[in-house]
Amino acid sequence: MNEEFRIVALVGKYQSADVAESITRMACFLQEHGLEVWLEEGTAQTVGRQCTERVASFDVIGEHADLVIVIGGDGSMLTAARALAGHNLPVVGINQGRLGFLTDVSREDMFTRISDILEGRFLRERRSLLEAEVWRHGARVFTTTALNDIVLSRGEIGRMIEFELHVDTEYIYSQRSDGIIVSTPTGSTAYALSANGPILHPRLAGIVLVPLCPHGLTYRPLALAQDSVVELVILGDRRCMLHSDGQTLFETLPGDRVRVRRSTHGVTLLHPENYSYFAVLREKLHWSAPPHLS
Amino acid sequence: MNEEFRIVALVGKYQSADVAESITRMACFLQEHGLEVWLEEGTAQTVGRQCTERVASFDVIGEHADLVIVIGGDGSMLTAARALAGHNLPVVGINQGRLGFLTDVSREDMFTRISDILEGRFLRERRSLLEAEVWRHGARVFTTTALNDIVLSRGEIGRMIEFELHVDTEYIYSQRSDGIIVSTPTGSTAYALSANGPILHPRLAGIVLVPLCPHGLTYRPLALAQDSVVELVILGDRRCMLHSDGQTLFETLPGDRVRVRRSTHGVTLLHPENYSYFAVLREKLHWSAPPHLS
Amino acid sequence: MNEEFRIVALVGKYQSADVAESITRMACFLQEHGLEVWLEEGTAQTVGRQCTERVASFDVIGEHADLVIVIGGDGSMLTAARALAGHNLPVVGINQGRLGFLTDVSREDMFTRISDILEGRFLRERRSLLEAEVWRHGARVFTTTALNDIVLSRGEIGRMIEFELHVDTEYIYSQRSDGIIVSTPTGSTAYALSANGPILHPRLAGIVLVPLCPHGLTYRPLALAQDSVVELVILGDRRCMLHSDGQTLFETLPGDRVRVRRSTHGVTLLHPENYSYFAVLREKLHWSAPPHLS
Amino acid sequence: MNEEFRIVALVGKYQSADVAESITRMACFLQEHGLEVWLEEGTAQTVGRQCTERVASFDVIGEHADLVIVIGGDGSMLTAARALAGHNLPVVGINQGRLGFLTDVSREDMFTRISDILEGRFLRERRSLLEAEVWRHGARVFTTTALNDIVLSRGEIGRMIEFELHVDTEYIYSQRSDGIIVSTPTGSTAYALSANGPILHPRLAGIVLVPLCPHGLTYRPLALAQDSVVELVILGDRRCMLHSDGQTLFETLPGDRVRVRRSTHGVTLLHPENYSYFAVLREKLHWSAPPHLS
Repeated sequence: MNEEFRIVALVGKYQSADVAESITRMACFLQEHGLEVWLEEGTAQTVGRQCTERVASFDVIGEHADLVIVIGGDGSMLTAARALAGHNLPVVGINQGRLGFLTDVSREDMFTRISDILEGRFLRERRSLLEAEVWRHGARVFTTTALNDIVLSRGEIGRMIEFELHVDTEYIYSQRSDGIIVSTPTGSTAYALSANGPILHPRLAGIVLVPLCPHGLTYRPLALAQDSVVELVILGDRRCMLHSDGQTLFETLPGDRVRVRRSTHGVTLLHPENYSYFAVLREKLHWSAPPHLS
Repeated sequence: MNEEFRIVALVGKYQSADVAESITRMACFLQEHGLEVWLEEGTAQTVGRQCTERVASFDVIGEHADLVIVIGGDGSMLTAARALAGHNLPVVGINQGRLGFLTDVSREDMFTRISDILEGRFLRERRSLLEAEVWRHGARVFTTTALNDIVLSRGEIGRMIEFELHVDTEYIYSQRSDGIIVSTPTGSTAYALSANGPILHPRLAGIVLVPLCPHGLTYRPLALAQDSVVELVILGDRRCMLHSDGQTLFETLPGDRVRVRRSTHGVTLLHPENYSYFAVLREKLHWSAPPHLS
Repeated sequence: MNEEFRIVALVGKYQSADVAESITRMACFLQEHGLEVWLEEGTAQTVGRQCTERVASFDVIGEHADLVIVIGGDGSMLTAARALAGHNLPVVGINQGRLGFLTDVSREDMFTRISDILEGRFLRERRSLLEAEVWRHGARVFTTTALNDIVLSRGEIGRMIEFELHVDTEYIYSQRSDGIIVSTPTGSTAYALSANGPILHPRLAGIVLVPLCPHGLTYRPLALAQDSVVELVILGDRRCMLHSDGQTLFETLPGDRVRVRRSTHGVTLLHPENYSYFAVLREKLHWSAPPHLS
Repeated sequence: MNEEFRIVALVGKYQSADVAESITRMACFLQEHGLEVWLEEGTAQTVGRQCTERVASFDVIGEHADLVIVIGGDGSMLTAARALAGHNLPVVGINQGRLGFLTDVSREDMFTRISDILEGRFLRERRSLLEAEVWRHGARVFTTTALNDIVLSRGEIGRMIEFELHVDTEYIYSQRSDGIIVSTPTGSTAYALSANGPILHPRLAGIVLVPLCPHGLTYRPLALAQDSVVELVILGDRRCMLHSDGQTLFETLPGDRVRVRRSTHGVTLLHPENYSYFAVLREKLHWSAPPHLS
């Protein structure tokens, strides 16, 4: 058994009875292997405490646990990743049926794969996070973190919003559109992809801007170096909403400046040794399989 | 002077002082030419009554006037077209600086062009309208009309909505997306174009469906015959909003059926004789000009 | 047995041994049902003459046969459709494994479906064809027909070609690009779709123009009324090739005018009664299935 | 006068009489400022030798000159950049009328801007190059370099080619398409942009793959880390051509492996101090101008 992991925290899909059984089986499996099992407190609302030592908040988990196992979908991974951003502990994602971009271990294989990981057979991958701040009259009035994307978009009334884009304090353009996605490579296969954005390999350290239905056909997806600072200045009087990983979080006011940059924190994912980023893409996007398999 | 036109109604951009002067000048110009000038009542709030015989609602204008002149932008034309849909009187659009798809007469040329039209030198063009109804528990709870498009889209909270698409009562697909645009050929150069839709020439009698950021890369713009009945059945519990020509009008509930079809009404546009649909497109989209001009 | 069909011609995928067996089985099946079976002469090169009365050219088939059954892929249907364009006999398409847009009967179901059709249980659908002519110094130097699309594209040397687009004798724009697709609704799910064109339902009587990698981001797919005459005037000195349904047919010279319009001929497809255009699309594009089936 | 530059080589647009006058004026301007002026030998075919010390090949220029000034369009810059790739000398681009992505100094400003540069007031920017090799039966049969892009595309006959994509020796997918663009950030605003690729800022050290009309709607643009090795394995028997910066260079055979990676060489561009990558983009793509300018 790898010395690295002693305390393992389990996180389940929020309020999902479906994953309860998997969580409990995983808890007992881990306990049998001599590990101390903690349960994330939100997850504990729907999951029994069998085989678990302790219920703990994400903060406490972040400070004390050695490994986090998320059982659910990509949404659960996003939540966990954001909550644990300040800490440096690795996360594994187990999906509940449908392969996810972040939950790449299937429920069928979970005991084998987790055994492998506990015994040190894994790939460690660092994914970057975005940090967004809203500045109003010189003061920071909001801050958030995202693993996939920060999205500025119109409210439900009316059509277009208007904003200026600045990169590294340089004015780039004013845009009228439904909004704009600022995405990590991780997020490039999520919402940004459905908005016609490119796929960015996680090893390409960049940030991609994808406009939503821009008024003007030449406002195209734009990939920037990862140390770029993106600033969106809200123009006009339309209501705009700020979303982080699909969660609606903040309503901006005209004149607000939304500043997005790469976070100093990141997320460490652990994958089984046979993991392949492209294999996941290939399955999710129905790309052709290797010739000897098809 | 053409016998066809006796009463001409003037409509200005809503609450715009900018157009007030143009309206008044046009009113006096028309009066001098022996026409009776009416002023639309909303417009009358910001425009003086000089040279105008009467202030009237769109309904009264629709019943009694022979010609409507709209001075403003495409938005003003959309409003007028919808308000006059049930009537059969022709509309001319004069833009206030920037060429519009619907307001193709420039302010500089307006007296010459309107003279031409009054003397019978014009092109008459029929544009189709869409009619949308919302059905709930077997009852029609909402109805609206659009010259450009009917849009079903997500509210400001969360990300995707989910709905079924039926065409002529046949199930086509279920889609998770930010929404969908149902557009006329007229609307194909408006919002639908910025959502990656095709341009439909007005003579092509069709309806085009353009999904907004669909989850699934194979949900592509789909152009249907004009007599098709499009039905969107709201799934899930996400808040959805229904928009007509960019005006947010109705909040749907899960299970609501939004039925969109070509209206039995239409809009009659009058253009100067040198009008060209493609020339407007070419200017708006910066296409290359004819060789002898460039 | 339906009186309509007496002579049935069989056409197979060109030089494909795979379909030989299916053709022979179909020939004997038809003969047993009292029909006279003819074999298309190209097909006869790879298929035995068992159960067939006669080998005939497409022209002879077109003049005398009552029904054509194509066994192969969409490519075989395209060839047959073009070859039979001047005649008015109906065509059924049977695919050899993978559902096609035009070969919508599967090999597994072929005897049942053909029985149904022979007994009069079918849907009859008319698809339009395009006709292209190349004019040089006032003379027509080439003419061809297409069920899917006419494509003007660059040769293999260099990058862009340049041409003017005229519609109904009106100059629309000059374009530098890799070429342009002029497509029927039938072709809108073929090459045009991979070039970002919209899907046009066959009942929407239109022609769609889809530029290939245009230099200039505002040259978008353009759908025209079906009676439009499209003219491409070759500019510059780059080699351009003209393709019909994917077959490369003609090399144009600078100054050549390629005129494309809807053919006065069309193709009559017969489908089984349970055929649905959208069901084929749904399967080919992996759209979600109806809720009660998924 | 900056000590850095002593010998300046001039390169003009190939066989263009237009630039001859500018070249000569620039040569005399440089000579007056005490610099030794060399003329590239291809350029010397159409340009007089006034004020020039010597005519030299790109190789000799690369070894001995201190600065290269290209007068022409982006195409001339591409040629010069490839020819000088192995050397480490900086290049300035002067356009002949229309702003280029690489020729960002206008003819009107050329003397002022070149003076500034000679006096040390400039921005130095490093752009990466791609290197492509074709391997056949274990031997390297072709090699080339590109500043914009390496393109594998179909020949003029028929439609689709088929190839496998491997990245860092991992099989990614097989694709049937018109071809694929492998582009640098520099090339992302050239051909790749017209094929729906994203814009990559030059500081984002990546390689972007953009498929051309892929059969399959989920083959999307893919941006990779710059140290990735891309390999295209030619399948099927279709003729494929390999292009470098738009120059057609090589015809591949089935089974050939086209390997593309970042070159160990690069190009050093010098820009005036007021140069902005985004300002060039904004002008070329008609993005909105800063508010105080528009």
